[in-house]
Amino acid sequence: MTERPFGFTLHASDGLARLGTVQTRHGDIRTPAFMPVGTVGTVKGLYLDQVEATGADIILGNTYHLMLRPGAEQVAELGGLHRFIGWKRPILTDSGGFQIMSLSKIRKITEQGAVFQSHIDGKRHELTPERAMEIQRLLGSDIQMQLDQCLEFPHTEKAAEKAMQLSLRWAERSRRAFGQQPGRGNFGIVQGGVNARLRRESAEGLKFIGFEGYAIGGLAVGEGQALMLQTIEATAPHLPVDRPRYLMGVGTPEDILESVARGIDMFDCVMPTRSGRHGQAFTRFGKINLRNARHAGDPRPLDPEHPCPALSQYSRAYLHHLIRSGELLGMMLLSWANIAYYQSLMQGIRAAIAEGRFDAFRTATKEQWKRGDVPA
Amino acid sequence: MTERPFGFTLHASDGLARLGTVQTRHGDIRTPAFMPVGTVGTVKGLYLDQVEATGADIILGNTYHLMLRPGAEQVAELGGLHRFIGWKRPILTDSGGFQIMSLSKIRKITEQGAVFQSHIDGKRHELTPERAMEIQRLLGSDIQMQLDQCLEFPHTEKAAEKAMQLSLRWAERSRRAFGQQPGRGNFGIVQGGVNARLRRESAEGLKFIGFEGYAIGGLAVGEGQALMLQTIEATAPHLPVDRPRYLMGVGTPEDILESVARGIDMFDCVMPTRSGRHGQAFTRFGKINLRNARHAGDPRPLDPEHPCPALSQYSRAYLHHLIRSGELLGMMLLSWANIAYYQSLMQGIRAAIAEGRFDAFRTATKEQWKRGDVPA
Repeated sequence: MTERPFGFTLHASDGLARLGTVQTRHGDIRTPAFMPVGTVGTVKGLYLDQVEATGADIILGNTYHLMLRPGAEQVAELGGLHRFIGWKRPILTDSGGFQIMSLSKIRKITEQGAVFQSHIDGKRHELTPERAMEIQRLLGSDIQMQLDQCLEFPHTEKAAEKAMQLSLRWAERSRRAFGQQPGRGNFGIVQGGVNARLRRESAEGLKFIGFEGYAIGGLAVGEGQALMLQTIEATAPHLPVDRPRYLMGVGTPEDILESVARGIDMFDCVMPTRSGRHGQAFTRFGKINLRNARHAGDPRPLDPEHPCPALSQYSRAYLHHLIRSGELLGMMLLSWANIAYYQSLMQGIRAAIAEGRFDAFRTATKEQWKRGDVPA
Repeated sequence: MTERPFGFTLHASDGLARLGTVQTRHGDIRTPAFMPVGTVGTVKGLYLDQVEATGADIILGNTYHLMLRPGAEQVAELGGLHRFIGWKRPILTDSGGFQIMSLSKIRKITEQGAVFQSHIDGKRHELTPERAMEIQRLLGSDIQMQLDQCLEFPHTEKAAEKAMQLSLRWAERSRRAFGQQPGRGNFGIVQGGVNARLRRESAEGLKFIGFEGYAIGGLAVGEGQALMLQTIEATAPHLPVDRPRYLMGVGTPEDILESVARGIDMFDCVMPTRSGRHGQAFTRFGKINLRNARHAGDPRPLDPEHPCPALSQYSRAYLHHLIRSGELLGMMLLSWANIAYYQSLMQGIRAAIAEGRFDAFRTATKEQWKRGDVPA
């Protein structure tokens, strides 16, 4: 374990797009970065050495899921999350706020924290800002998120303001609970719905507290891409230039490209693995639904030039057959292919920013997606 | 593609146990051999390079499944089963007889063949001995099984005799339909329930027709290990010494050990992958049910000395967590671990026969299974 401090280095900008490196005790994260989601301690359907080989520098774990099963104290006893799952690079854990909103059917939010019923066995649990930080410390995450209150969309402005203010007070308690953890970072989460004023107030409040990084939460919950991008535009300028910016739970390849263009550095989303399990591939040529009958006799791989075997070594006909048959291997291959494509997209983004041609890259990438690759 | 003929070489015997090599156009099969089952063209939950790395020389494909989806003609158009799924070594395909009995709810058996409803979409299909061979030729299998009539257990002796006689007539038609296929083999299937006289008649009848190999079918359908082994004892002596003997659909590691001791050369079974998906591991130390709560805090791997990463690189605590959480990776790892254990068992069996110590190996292996490895 190195003793070097947590940090962020901004190497270059191209328009609002940024090229950087986040330093953690488990190594560096090249940004813009996409973090595969390892919900309960596994990136669904992939071996972690496959995840690493795609170029992922960091994965995400979910506090909500891991606190319920196997439990934070259990993971700590087994040597922490890195050791438990066998991943040597950085891990970011969220705080549980989003899953309390989206997964637990019965929940109560008070000033003190959240009380909710487990979606697994119905047991009652409490999550305070302090406990959320304690859990993440027990897991040994390199980036630990504050507890925040997430709202379903749509909601009233009044509700958004109330949740944002509560999240700010929780941010302060989270920050205090985080304490000193060399080589690890604590991120605050900007809330405020799609309201520019609230987002700005939230960002200013978090900056005043001071975090190693800043996340934008509460987006990609149904507001649509246009409103999401507007909200990013209204928020990013109020975040410190010298800290990483993480857009939580986003998104499609296009969402990522457009958000990078607005100054975002980090992303996570279940989409590549979830869509993969359902037969959808994300590729250089756009989305390809392998369930579609037109693939049944197609001997071509998804992308013959891609270094990932899932993209270059398996025919569409075979993938189609596996997905139609409900076979594990179909889910495994398409999850792998999608994580690999997302990572190569991030690599392309980083290279483009480094060379000052991000805008051209963005245009060309979107055109290629639109063109598709149905044979003539 | 080599042009060398299909063949079998018997290298050594140790008691009734036999060490041999089956030669096919896609390479050699070391016997005693366990063939992982690749039902619809995938060994469930494994990459085929993992299957190969465990030491499997041959996998099995199911005619019944593949004829329904994606269809034999479709596979042939895509270059045959080897190319379709990406497996360069030998493939054995069964004839569909067993699945018509076990999977299709509506079926009718006549002298001509079997008419049945697909378990997928209810469509009507016909399978004659000739069509079963045509399908296997289209798939390009290295070992092609005759169509036989399988019975549920229990059944009357009269029913067993009738099915055995029909299977013999189908054997003759299958043999004729197989024709000349250099480097490929056609196996007849001994039927006759658990009746020694019927088994002998079936074996003699098949020998008279003449096949490249002989299978024992209709066992491991509920008759229990003792009756199964008795039936093998009553059958194997009537099979030619110079041809491989394949016990279909068997079995547990102990079934295999005991059947090798009675002169069987080849095995297939869904058990390692199916049990793996349900959280059960087969190891040197016997069966281990990873769902059991006692594994929750156990940092030990299943077998630290096994070369397969699934057995040596993942803690029981993590496997337990994955299985309890219903995660794909849990199914993947335990399926892989089980196939790897089965293959190392076969390797151990082969080495023991070669060195004339099969009986000691059999005793020691069974003792180790019984001893287990719960920590003191």
